[in-house]
Amino acid sequence: MSKIPPKSGQLTMSYTTTVVTPSGSRFQEENLAIETPYSIALNDENIGSSMVLPIGLEEFGAGFLFGQGYIKIPGEVKEIYVCPEGRIAVYADVDIIEPKEVIITSGCGGTGKISKEMLEGAFDPLQECTITFPEISTFIRQVLQASPLGPDTHCVHGCGLWNDGRLQVFFEDVGRHNAVDKVLGAILLGKASARGAIYTTGRLTSDMVLKCARIGIPIIMSRTAPSSLGLAIARRSGATLAAYARPDKVNVFNAPERIIS
Amino acid sequence: MSKIPPKSGQLTMSYTTTVVTPSGSRFQEENLAIETPYSIALNDENIGSSMVLPIGLEEFGAGFLFGQGYIKIPGEVKEIYVCPEGRIAVYADVDIIEPKEVIITSGCGGTGKISKEMLEGAFDPLQECTITFPEISTFIRQVLQASPLGPDTHCVHGCGLWNDGRLQVFFEDVGRHNAVDKVLGAILLGKASARGAIYTTGRLTSDMVLKCARIGIPIIMSRTAPSSLGLAIARRSGATLAAYARPDKVNVFNAPERIIS
Repeated sequence: MSKIPPKSGQLTMSYTTTVVTPSGSRFQEENLAIETPYSIALNDENIGSSMVLPIGLEEFGAGFLFGQGYIKIPGEVKEIYVCPEGRIAVYADVDIIEPKEVIITSGCGGTGKISKEMLEGAFDPLQECTITFPEISTFIRQVLQASPLGPDTHCVHGCGLWNDGRLQVFFEDVGRHNAVDKVLGAILLGKASARGAIYTTGRLTSDMVLKCARIGIPIIMSRTAPSSLGLAIARRSGATLAAYARPDKVNVFNAPERIIS
Repeated sequence: MSKIPPKSGQLTMSYTTTVVTPSGSRFQEENLAIETPYSIALNDENIGSSMVLPIGLEEFGAGFLFGQGYIKIPGEVKEIYVCPEGRIAVYADVDIIEPKEVIITSGCGGTGKISKEMLEGAFDPLQECTITFPEISTFIRQVLQASPLGPDTHCVHGCGLWNDGRLQVFFEDVGRHNAVDKVLGAILLGKASARGAIYTTGRLTSDMVLKCARIGIPIIMSRTAPSSLGLAIARRSGATLAAYARPDKVNVFNAPERIIS
């Protein structure tokens, strides 16, 4: 069996497995997604560490700090250095104030905690827009075809952002939160606008919907289901929540008026 | 649309959604999994909060504290009180020592953090056992048929523990970690033995494999894939790691000798 550790920057590794059936066994090659720890520092203060797929790490650094409530709006981040040994150093024009009470979230993701204040607080108005059904079809198809990593490893989630008639950014990660954090990071770094639709392959639990609504994204879509609290937050923020999204059908749990069929 | 908040103890809520297609829209009833915050206290000290599916909360309290490194072996937990307002109070015969450096994990789960020490430390020997293929088939079938909540909501993960020729415990949660934590909690509360096989519907990222191996479970199975670090931890601990597990086939990434075909 392969014993070579993955190279830096590599996203998958090959491994010989043993397929066992009632009638015997055989060897098989499998691809595994690389999961590796990175610590995130803000203005030289260590904020946390997370397991990540090592790509889109600048965006992840910014998005992670947004998810935790340290960074709030685009423009605050000044510089990001990614050290391949496992550190993302973010420099931003913010004061570091520890969130008082945090809730560890149920999500498949790296961020993993939100403050009670964020969960219960009011929302700023979303950045209004609508999306047509042909746009939704193209968006979903493009996200699902953007990378072979999902079908290859069965161990990553994908997330894309659509606006101005095209897929603006797409990221993947071993955690569904991390993939969303990378997209939100791209918004914070001025590489994309929140005035659009986000699509994730992961479930829309509370924390997932919360951070998308906090950054102002009006249309939140998922390949799969929301939870009760994910829906509650969509309703409170006014965001469109579209689940079980397919190129030919979406199941809208809140604010269907932003989808023009 | 339904505006009634879920009742205490309820695990799903019904909601009327709008299915939008290119040719028009129609209403549809959907079931959502209930996601609700619970705080966990150990000996009256607040340790953390997590979003959970509100069932199996005693087990969750014990398993959560194990995942975070506060509780280490069965027998330490003395009493658990679950307050439906959102608090799990665990009393245990342990000193509360804060983990020094924590890594927020990539997993779809509530626990969401592990200490660097746990990730890099040595493992105690696992509780040895083997499993036959007919047992695996029965185990997987029973877990997948144990509850309608998964197919109903598409928003929960299931986890079961098999030993002595039968399914000992089964739990579900909105987080894949939480479902595993509930099973580990059952072991800590003396309701089941670690000397067996665990099966989860969730991916086997590092933290998932780590806590199963730490508690001594020798056979770790998943419906889906492991990550690179999940495999590395299985190899380091010596645990059998069986992925893509189906009633007629499992794909063994480590220690296939515990599976007797």
